[in-house]
Amino acid sequence: MINVGIIGATGYAGAELVRILLNHSEVQIRWFGSRSYIDENYADIYRNFFELVDAKCMDDNMEELASAADVIFTATPQGYLAGVLTDDILSRTKIVDLSADYRIKDVAVYEKWYGIGHKSPQFIGEAVYGLCEINRGKVNAGTRLIANPGCYTTCSILTAYPLVKSGLIDPDTLIIDAKSGTSGAGRGAKTPNLFCEVNENMKAYGVAAHRHTPEIEEQLGYAAGRPVCVSFTPHLVPMNRGILVTAYAGLQQKADGSFPTEEELRSAYESLYQGERFVRVLKKGVCPETKWVEGSNYVDVNFVVDERTNRVVMMGALDNLVKGAAGQAVQNMNLLSGLPEDTGLGMVPCFP
Amino acid sequence: MINVGIIGATGYAGAELVRILLNHSEVQIRWFGSRSYIDENYADIYRNFFELVDAKCMDDNMEELASAADVIFTATPQGYLAGVLTDDILSRTKIVDLSADYRIKDVAVYEKWYGIGHKSPQFIGEAVYGLCEINRGKVNAGTRLIANPGCYTTCSILTAYPLVKSGLIDPDTLIIDAKSGTSGAGRGAKTPNLFCEVNENMKAYGVAAHRHTPEIEEQLGYAAGRPVCVSFTPHLVPMNRGILVTAYAGLQQKADGSFPTEEELRSAYESLYQGERFVRVLKKGVCPETKWVEGSNYVDVNFVVDERTNRVVMMGALDNLVKGAAGQAVQNMNLLSGLPEDTGLGMVPCFP
Amino acid sequence: MINVGIIGATGYAGAELVRILLNHSEVQIRWFGSRSYIDENYADIYRNFFELVDAKCMDDNMEELASAADVIFTATPQGYLAGVLTDDILSRTKIVDLSADYRIKDVAVYEKWYGIGHKSPQFIGEAVYGLCEINRGKVNAGTRLIANPGCYTTCSILTAYPLVKSGLIDPDTLIIDAKSGTSGAGRGAKTPNLFCEVNENMKAYGVAAHRHTPEIEEQLGYAAGRPVCVSFTPHLVPMNRGILVTAYAGLQQKADGSFPTEEELRSAYESLYQGERFVRVLKKGVCPETKWVEGSNYVDVNFVVDERTNRVVMMGALDNLVKGAAGQAVQNMNLLSGLPEDTGLGMVPCFP
Amino acid sequence: MINVGIIGATGYAGAELVRILLNHSEVQIRWFGSRSYIDENYADIYRNFFELVDAKCMDDNMEELASAADVIFTATPQGYLAGVLTDDILSRTKIVDLSADYRIKDVAVYEKWYGIGHKSPQFIGEAVYGLCEINRGKVNAGTRLIANPGCYTTCSILTAYPLVKSGLIDPDTLIIDAKSGTSGAGRGAKTPNLFCEVNENMKAYGVAAHRHTPEIEEQLGYAAGRPVCVSFTPHLVPMNRGILVTAYAGLQQKADGSFPTEEELRSAYESLYQGERFVRVLKKGVCPETKWVEGSNYVDVNFVVDERTNRVVMMGALDNLVKGAAGQAVQNMNLLSGLPEDTGLGMVPCFP
Repeated sequence: MINVGIIGATGYAGAELVRILLNHSEVQIRWFGSRSYIDENYADIYRNFFELVDAKCMDDNMEELASAADVIFTATPQGYLAGVLTDDILSRTKIVDLSADYRIKDVAVYEKWYGIGHKSPQFIGEAVYGLCEINRGKVNAGTRLIANPGCYTTCSILTAYPLVKSGLIDPDTLIIDAKSGTSGAGRGAKTPNLFCEVNENMKAYGVAAHRHTPEIEEQLGYAAGRPVCVSFTPHLVPMNRGILVTAYAGLQQKADGSFPTEEELRSAYESLYQGERFVRVLKKGVCPETKWVEGSNYVDVNFVVDERTNRVVMMGALDNLVKGAAGQAVQNMNLLSGLPEDTGLGMVPCFP
Repeated sequence: MINVGIIGATGYAGAELVRILLNHSEVQIRWFGSRSYIDENYADIYRNFFELVDAKCMDDNMEELASAADVIFTATPQGYLAGVLTDDILSRTKIVDLSADYRIKDVAVYEKWYGIGHKSPQFIGEAVYGLCEINRGKVNAGTRLIANPGCYTTCSILTAYPLVKSGLIDPDTLIIDAKSGTSGAGRGAKTPNLFCEVNENMKAYGVAAHRHTPEIEEQLGYAAGRPVCVSFTPHLVPMNRGILVTAYAGLQQKADGSFPTEEELRSAYESLYQGERFVRVLKKGVCPETKWVEGSNYVDVNFVVDERTNRVVMMGALDNLVKGAAGQAVQNMNLLSGLPEDTGLGMVPCFP
Repeated sequence: MINVGIIGATGYAGAELVRILLNHSEVQIRWFGSRSYIDENYADIYRNFFELVDAKCMDDNMEELASAADVIFTATPQGYLAGVLTDDILSRTKIVDLSADYRIKDVAVYEKWYGIGHKSPQFIGEAVYGLCEINRGKVNAGTRLIANPGCYTTCSILTAYPLVKSGLIDPDTLIIDAKSGTSGAGRGAKTPNLFCEVNENMKAYGVAAHRHTPEIEEQLGYAAGRPVCVSFTPHLVPMNRGILVTAYAGLQQKADGSFPTEEELRSAYESLYQGERFVRVLKKGVCPETKWVEGSNYVDVNFVVDERTNRVVMMGALDNLVKGAAGQAVQNMNLLSGLPEDTGLGMVPCFP
Repeated sequence: MINVGIIGATGYAGAELVRILLNHSEVQIRWFGSRSYIDENYADIYRNFFELVDAKCMDDNMEELASAADVIFTATPQGYLAGVLTDDILSRTKIVDLSADYRIKDVAVYEKWYGIGHKSPQFIGEAVYGLCEINRGKVNAGTRLIANPGCYTTCSILTAYPLVKSGLIDPDTLIIDAKSGTSGAGRGAKTPNLFCEVNENMKAYGVAAHRHTPEIEEQLGYAAGRPVCVSFTPHLVPMNRGILVTAYAGLQQKADGSFPTEEELRSAYESLYQGERFVRVLKKGVCPETKWVEGSNYVDVNFVVDERTNRVVMMGALDNLVKGAAGQAVQNMNLLSGLPEDTGLGMVPCFP
């Protein structure tokens, strides 16, 4: 049995971790950390857990938690983990960090996009970027720290990765238009996230400035074998859960002047994702919809070749709280713990 | 392993059965019946099941199915099962019927409210009304036919039952104001159920005429020990899932002129539902919300005593597709099959 | 031209006043009061008014405003107006108060339900309860203070008034189940009003304790000619605008033992509302829907007689921000100013 | 007074025409055409018009209507008007066609994208493409036929036009990612448009194949002075009204290797849209939101320069039923009739 602690258990991602882990046969949650609600019943904050969780919220004591937990999930604001992490803690426990603190290898890039200093850059090197489908080979018995990818990034990267990796598109032309449900904005009480402000409304935000951009660029850069620079625009959609990515790129012209065919592109997707439990390459002509993955750890991807423009339109959909956060974190925990990667992640998408 | 067939697998309740049964350790679905989609891939109709279900839709051949399946779920229009059911079929398989055909013991009442003749009233007597929390004792090895309760009725009955049964309220004053998500209206392509007609809108419908009324009255009549006649008003709410019931009744005055206390009422709820896995009596002061039970088999109930009016306001919330349909059907299948009643029903409510 | 000032112009009701008054041919808005946003451009707070309003938010200086404005609208928290109102102010301007401060004639009732002391009870007597359809006769040239009714109350009273007034129902049996869009909860940044908490959710709140209860009781008491005590339960619905009231009451039995007929009830509605521009008595069999009145000053009402229970189900729908707040306030301003009551209120309901 | 007839009055666009024209001081609606509802009360189909419209639905008799109406609006399926239009009709009345029949000058392009033959191409030449902000100069006393632009196209074109026209972007790099509320899909009873299928869901559709593509390309081609070929992807959003366009293009490098500045781009927007009543160029840093234009004839546009990618992100928002359909049609009718272009279009955006 794996003893688990959650720091930031009363955010939406933290609560989703609880939802998933309650049905994980190998896990006990030992610590519901929430500085805002110390000593309150956790199930009074999230009443869906009434009679399912009998525990009080606890302070964020990483020192103590490191001894109590085999794995700690930190679903915390940017900078929190970097500010408290020590080698001693890492020597006693493993950490899956849902914040961005260890996702970006170049600390200067992190500090520029996040606007804060990084307090423990010495751990960046060892952190594994936990996009399991790409990086599971980097996790081994000695891995102590997983940087769990962001929601937009998971969807964007998995959608575009096969075509970038295979060289079938020109990564310099990559434009990612992403649409997210509102749970991605967190549970903070802010006017722009009120029901009446979001409902019956749609907008872009953070245009040309969203923090997930460098994370996408770094990972797709590894796929391309050289730096890439993308346009990334997030949008807020009046729904609770779900991210839909629509990505555009020019097809890479061949030496003979021709362009890659639909079959070549499909083959790139299928060969990369063959055998992947949580990535579903849809049939030709079917567009991903967020509803078809809701509540599950699936990412649905597909693409359409536009012969008029010699571009490809790539599409991906996931549940931002599951594959985009808590589900992927559990997937990483399973990897860290030597369990089958899909343990506890058998949630069937819930429609309607 | 229980072999299961579903007739009406492409309605919302049928699809929810599939979602639940895919995670049921003791079940194999052998038959995805859907007259409208014969020979189409089931996962092309409900793409959430892509890569999870590899089967084609089949015709509604009850004769053949009775041999192939240990349990048949009929999620079909009113009158269908009554029209095809035979003693031979019941001798070869067990049936959990999600339609109303066998819910009402008095065939004249059924025919009046449903406006159709009942084609096989001879089976009404043996059918067990499958509200497990009340009637599980009536299910035994010989039970062949379960009338799975309606969504509004499950919520209404479980909300009011303790106070009717205990005689603490006057059942003649019972008024049930129910609010339902739109999945309750089914997947038929009708203008009033279009997104733009339902979204940002709220209305009552079927006022003083909804078919679930006699079903509520019959069951609460058993609790009261005499016939009861209730006001029941359903409303359509712009959400996918969830039923909220707000029920009003006058407190039953005692011989000494006093009225029952909050404690007496609470005691009635707690004694009836003690040990019930799927009924949660909330703490005093907490109102049920549909979101806290979404995707799960729970019913949350509570009440408020209004000393100004000597009335009690009872409230209940459930997911109309789970405890209000497919979840309860699986609960009944478990009972029929001698399995623990909650097998495969461990879904944790999904919030937000 | 009527010079108008708004205190509380950045709440939802205040903004709706602006929306309506911009198309009112006889009005100039001189003062956009908003303590929270002093010196900010009003159109930066509500960008729907970009290029339509060129003014900055101003402080709540009632003294100065009393000289600048012919009519002041106070869309302010409970207690604000009572705390600042003076005879001098009322001698210089007229006030339409959208708060509850002067709605309830019995100051003890106000103080009990609102939990605050009333700072200027001396003005309660002269305040006219501004439910125009009932009280327009009380507004005359000398009227200085209008207590604009609440949203739930407007809908509840207009729905039940004809049957209470005509004695066709027993007011002691009146139960009002009300459902409201979320704009009724205001623009304050509170967790329970976040999109993800409200969307796909439904709940009752303030059960047996909501502040609109005594306001309903007082007005229906005038109609009944004696005190009445009602059950009132508000619910939060995942939509921006709209209130739907479903009200239940026992039909008043006649001396001969019979009950009033559908025709008698309809006659009560039609005679009371004949010629009313903003109350629409729907045809028999048609249930009010909030969408049919959205954005307009209409109230749609209707009823169904339930002969099984000898009860009537009354229904009413309005837009809580228009007829439930700003629209009715403008209707009152028109009355105060000697304009046709419907001036500037010609908004056609917006569907879908 | 202008006598108006509407063919297709019971679609969403037709009903929106009615909503707008009821408040148009110079218009009388003489004909509510709706083949599906002949002889039914129009206000029984759209109950928002109860007591506001007292007329029955009539057949689509263009011959008769041509004599009764000064202007006919055809809010009809593709191909309808082309099938019935004659020179005789056009000699007796003027037509604003909300379908695509006369939008595209090249009949082969029309026939290819719409998949139907064009039955009266002889009128294509004289039809004015009714994007008033661009083409109002083409409307004169002799104009008989206006091709009212599509919803996606109006938003896309007005968003990108200034930068294409000014040569500041490379039109060959133009990618338009559009998001639409569900009223754009019409009132037809189709399963994919049911509430439960759309709500809590987001998807792209018609990828690389949507019919509005050639319309966008034709108009932007005029702006560019040469053919352009764009990527256009529509998405369905769970809201009733509103289109948001996010458009991407590479900045046109100058001879000296530099790229246009933010100021140059802003100047292009402001000079083109200066004095336009219905196009609002938002302040720098403000992203358009569909809610800020809901119910009104406004288009809000803005852009962000991304110096990292040397691209610009252009954004536009409108109400698809108003500026995207009925409002623009009324704007065109005003032009045709010699009225001020904004007559009857003073609707203030409705928020929330």
